[in-house]
Amino acid sequence: MQLSEIGEFGLIKKIRDTCRSSAKDLITGIGDDAAAVKNSSGDLLITSDMMIEKTHFDLSYTTFKQLGYKFLAINISDIFAMGGTPEYFVISLGLPDKIMLRDIEELYAGINAIAKKFNVKIIGGDTCSSKQGFILNGTLTGRAKKIIPRSGAQKGDGIYVKGSLGDSAMGLYLLKKYGKKVHTFSPLTPRLKVIRDHLMPTPVPLAYTKGVTSMIDISDGLLIDVSHICDESRVGAVIYENLIPVSRALREVTDRAGIDPLILAMRGGEDYRLLFTSRHRLRTGAVRIGEIIHKERIIVDSKGRKRALKPEGYEHFKDCSW
Amino acid sequence: MQLSEIGEFGLIKKIRDTCRSSAKDLITGIGDDAAAVKNSSGDLLITSDMMIEKTHFDLSYTTFKQLGYKFLAINISDIFAMGGTPEYFVISLGLPDKIMLRDIEELYAGINAIAKKFNVKIIGGDTCSSKQGFILNGTLTGRAKKIIPRSGAQKGDGIYVKGSLGDSAMGLYLLKKYGKKVHTFSPLTPRLKVIRDHLMPTPVPLAYTKGVTSMIDISDGLLIDVSHICDESRVGAVIYENLIPVSRALREVTDRAGIDPLILAMRGGEDYRLLFTSRHRLRTGAVRIGEIIHKERIIVDSKGRKRALKPEGYEHFKDCSW
Repeated sequence: MQLSEIGEFGLIKKIRDTCRSSAKDLITGIGDDAAAVKNSSGDLLITSDMMIEKTHFDLSYTTFKQLGYKFLAINISDIFAMGGTPEYFVISLGLPDKIMLRDIEELYAGINAIAKKFNVKIIGGDTCSSKQGFILNGTLTGRAKKIIPRSGAQKGDGIYVKGSLGDSAMGLYLLKKYGKKVHTFSPLTPRLKVIRDHLMPTPVPLAYTKGVTSMIDISDGLLIDVSHICDESRVGAVIYENLIPVSRALREVTDRAGIDPLILAMRGGEDYRLLFTSRHRLRTGAVRIGEIIHKERIIVDSKGRKRALKPEGYEHFKDCSW
Repeated sequence: MQLSEIGEFGLIKKIRDTCRSSAKDLITGIGDDAAAVKNSSGDLLITSDMMIEKTHFDLSYTTFKQLGYKFLAINISDIFAMGGTPEYFVISLGLPDKIMLRDIEELYAGINAIAKKFNVKIIGGDTCSSKQGFILNGTLTGRAKKIIPRSGAQKGDGIYVKGSLGDSAMGLYLLKKYGKKVHTFSPLTPRLKVIRDHLMPTPVPLAYTKGVTSMIDISDGLLIDVSHICDESRVGAVIYENLIPVSRALREVTDRAGIDPLILAMRGGEDYRLLFTSRHRLRTGAVRIGEIIHKERIIVDSKGRKRALKPEGYEHFKDCSW
């Protein structure tokens, strides 16, 4: 059977079955943003992300510094999605001949810039030559007093998003269209804002997690990531299209390009914003976009017109953390 | 500057300088087999290894099961090299279209076989599609009561090797020559023994570490790995060629092929045997092949004829853990 037939999430479930562990100390394993392990000094989180040239990035429109920044950012986002604080980063690099020393120095300048921001320590890794393009793999550990898994959503919980959605997908669209690198984001025009959101996303943790029942970071796109929470929690969701947060910059850029910003916000992916459910009504910092329902389906409410989505309907085999 | 000009170990030193951490809890960072971090519940070890198709393995002469076995084995070897016990394994896979579901099932059968042997739990990872061949990255954590770094060797210490050297390199030579997969190793002829040592190395920990001052696993080849210990410990070494442990199987196979087994044992690499220094004379389980000297050079003693090696002389840019 080809992998495209069972899909990525089908594969992850298969792997999870093969590796089902009886470890008593394992809190969440394969199938969440990060693995979590019980530990005498608080829960240990581990997440790993691979970035492959031509699949995840294109050196014709990202600088090495931007790439390094994003590389650590997406790992930090996974730790935040578990309610954790990042700690140690281990890097593996597969280096093709074309990579120069100054490229690696630039890459590390980007990694170090965001590492400093979030107090992450780079402690080791592996370098090797590659005949297959430039490949990066990062593993980030973290700590959490209380793990927030994907699986805790309950009927009646509100669904919240922290930050605007769709900018990154629009940024990627522009980068692909023009195929050029951007070296400075100043002055920050709407175009440069969405491009920066794609090239250098900066994750933001939840400051306050009381009442939060489940969480994920939006990397595959809002609807897919809502479906991950629903799958793991065995519930459904109603999403109100008109409540989905879209930035002013995205509205401006999409208006000019004749693109519906909501499609990007719902399906674009690589937003690295937190999506979570809460049993309390939150007043600040996050936007309520829907609620959890009992029936295992996802309903998108567009000004009162409801349509149900089958989770299988928007599965892809692209990239996903488990 | 091209990376080949500064070499892999030069690059690792550069990276180490860029990331020099003031973390008080960091015991050993970039430049050892695994990173080690102080922790209330014993020292936490983290190691990461990337394997890239065509660079590290060739699907024309390894099965997926053998690949999975080796993939975890080389990570376990890094944890053993720090004096640790492996615990949790996180896997990232970059999957090209040609990979089938049964390939992944076989891969996990190999990973699970060795995981069971050493009580390693597979807890998570990342899957993504790859346009660049099959790529695996594994991150393994471990615990150690007492870390054994590369940097503790002192003048007068004996240099020891646990297990025979060179078999893996000869196995690779045979696999490349015949370009075929081996599906069974029974009956275990000398040829199949060296091929198995290449495809499915099984690391063996040191049972007894009292008096052990430094340790590394032999992945780059005996002489390079001796030089890593010497570099980090700021000492030199004398290696007695005639004391280097060579298996009977290797002697038989190299005799027939007209190859000097000592060259494979000294420079072959991928042995995944432990190389360590000890201030005590050990009686069992390991072979004494030389001693640490004050002067920072490596001398190979061939039946009384001595030759000095410059560490730069045998550096490559192939693969190495740091």
